[in-house]
Amino acid sequence: MLNRIHRLQVDTRGKGLYEITDSVERWLGQQGAATGLLTVFIQHTSASLTIQENADPDVVHDLNEFFGRIAPEDNRLYRHTVEGPDDMPAHIRSALTLTQLSIPVDQGRMTLGTWQGIYVFEHRARSHRRSVVLHLMAAS
Amino acid sequence: MLNRIHRLQVDTRGKGLYEITDSVERWLGQQGAATGLLTVFIQHTSASLTIQENADPDVVHDLNEFFGRIAPEDNRLYRHTVEGPDDMPAHIRSALTLTQLSIPVDQGRMTLGTWQGIYVFEHRARSHRRSVVLHLMAAS
Amino acid sequence: MLNRIHRLQVDTRGKGLYEITDSVERWLGQQGAATGLLTVFIQHTSASLTIQENADPDVVHDLNEFFGRIAPEDNRLYRHTVEGPDDMPAHIRSALTLTQLSIPVDQGRMTLGTWQGIYVFEHRARSHRRSVVLHLMAAS
Repeated sequence: MLNRIHRLQVDTRGKGLYEITDSVERWLGQQGAATGLLTVFIQHTSASLTIQENADPDVVHDLNEFFGRIAPEDNRLYRHTVEGPDDMPAHIRSALTLTQLSIPVDQGRMTLGTWQGIYVFEHRARSHRRSVVLHLMAAS
Repeated sequence: MLNRIHRLQVDTRGKGLYEITDSVERWLGQQGAATGLLTVFIQHTSASLTIQENADPDVVHDLNEFFGRIAPEDNRLYRHTVEGPDDMPAHIRSALTLTQLSIPVDQGRMTLGTWQGIYVFEHRARSHRRSVVLHLMAAS
Repeated sequence: MLNRIHRLQVDTRGKGLYEITDSVERWLGQQGAATGLLTVFIQHTSASLTIQENADPDVVHDLNEFFGRIAPEDNRLYRHTVEGPDDMPAHIRSALTLTQLSIPVDQGRMTLGTWQGIYVFEHRARSHRRSVVLHLMAAS
C-alpha cells in the first residue's frame, strides 16, 4: 500500500482561481499507483480549493465576481478589520468553499470528469505563496 | 485491505436534490467491509453533492429555493452565458456545496446520523445523467 | 495499517463556532500513527464543520454574523418552519459549509497550517450535544 505525502507551493497574484490540476497529476503519475484515494489539503484560511470547469475562462471570472458580491469588502460589516478590508471577506469565502478535496484514483489517474479542474482559490488582494499538501493512499 | 471503485449513474429531471443513500448503502453492503472510509465523488461542475435531512421533503425544497435566490438566473450578472441562463448559476451553486464526501464506515455501515441522507444536487434545468464515483478503502 | 474509529461529543450553547482541534489532536496522538489520513465527520444537518483562523476571536464572530445575514430567520422564506425559525436556516448554513473534513497526517501530526483550527459550527439557537466521528487510516 502506497501512503505518501507531498507539498506543492502555489504562487498567487491577487484574488482569483489558479489551476493546479497538472501539478497534482504530475506528482500522482510518479507514484505508480493503481487504485486509491488522493487528498488535496490547503494550509490556509484566506485561500481555499474548488473544482470547477476549466474549459471557458469566463466561468472562473464570474465565480470570483460572485464571491465579491456576497462577501463584500466593507469594514462596517466586520469586527475583524486589522488585517485589511480583504481579510475577513477572505475568511468567509474560504468557509463557503473547500479546504480539502479527496479524489478517487482509478488505473493510476484521478477520476476527474471531462471538464473538471482543481483550483486554488485566492481570496486576498496581494500576492501570496500558498502551501498545498497532497496525500495518496493507494495500491501499487 | 479492500480498495474498490464503483460507478453510479443518477438520472435527474431538473433543479433539485436526488437522494442516493440507498444506492450507496447497497454497494457498500456487498463489499464485506468492516472499518474504513467510503468516498463519494461527482464528476461534474454543474451538479454537486450534499448531506441533508431526509425526513421532511420541505427541507430539500427550501434548500433548492435558497440557492435560486443567492445565485439567480440573470445574464447581466455573468460573462459566461453561452450555455444558457442556468449554467453559470449552476457552477456557483456547485462551488458553494460539495464535489466530494467521505464517510467513515463502522461495522460495515456508513456512520450517517439518524436524519442524514446523501444527495446529488442538480443545478441545471434540463434532465441529465450524472456520474458519481464511489471508492471504498476498508478492512474486511 | 491503523484503521480506527473514535467518537467525540461536543456540547454547544447556541449559534457559533466551537473549536475541537485539541480533542482531535489528543486522540490522534494516542494512535501511534506516522503517515496517513484523518477524517472528521459530523452526524448532523443543522450543525457543520469548518476550518478557520483560531488567532483572532473576531474572525469566528464575523463568520457567524455573515451566515445570519445570508440565511436569515424569516418564516416567510421557508416552507419547513415546524421545528422553529432557526431550523431551516440551520440546514442552509450546513449545506454552505462542511459535513466532513479529511486532513493528511505527517510524522504523527495533522498537517494543519499555523493558524488553522477545526471547528464545529452550531447553527441552532438552543444547546445541543453534537456527535462527531473521527476515522484514521495510517501507517504506524
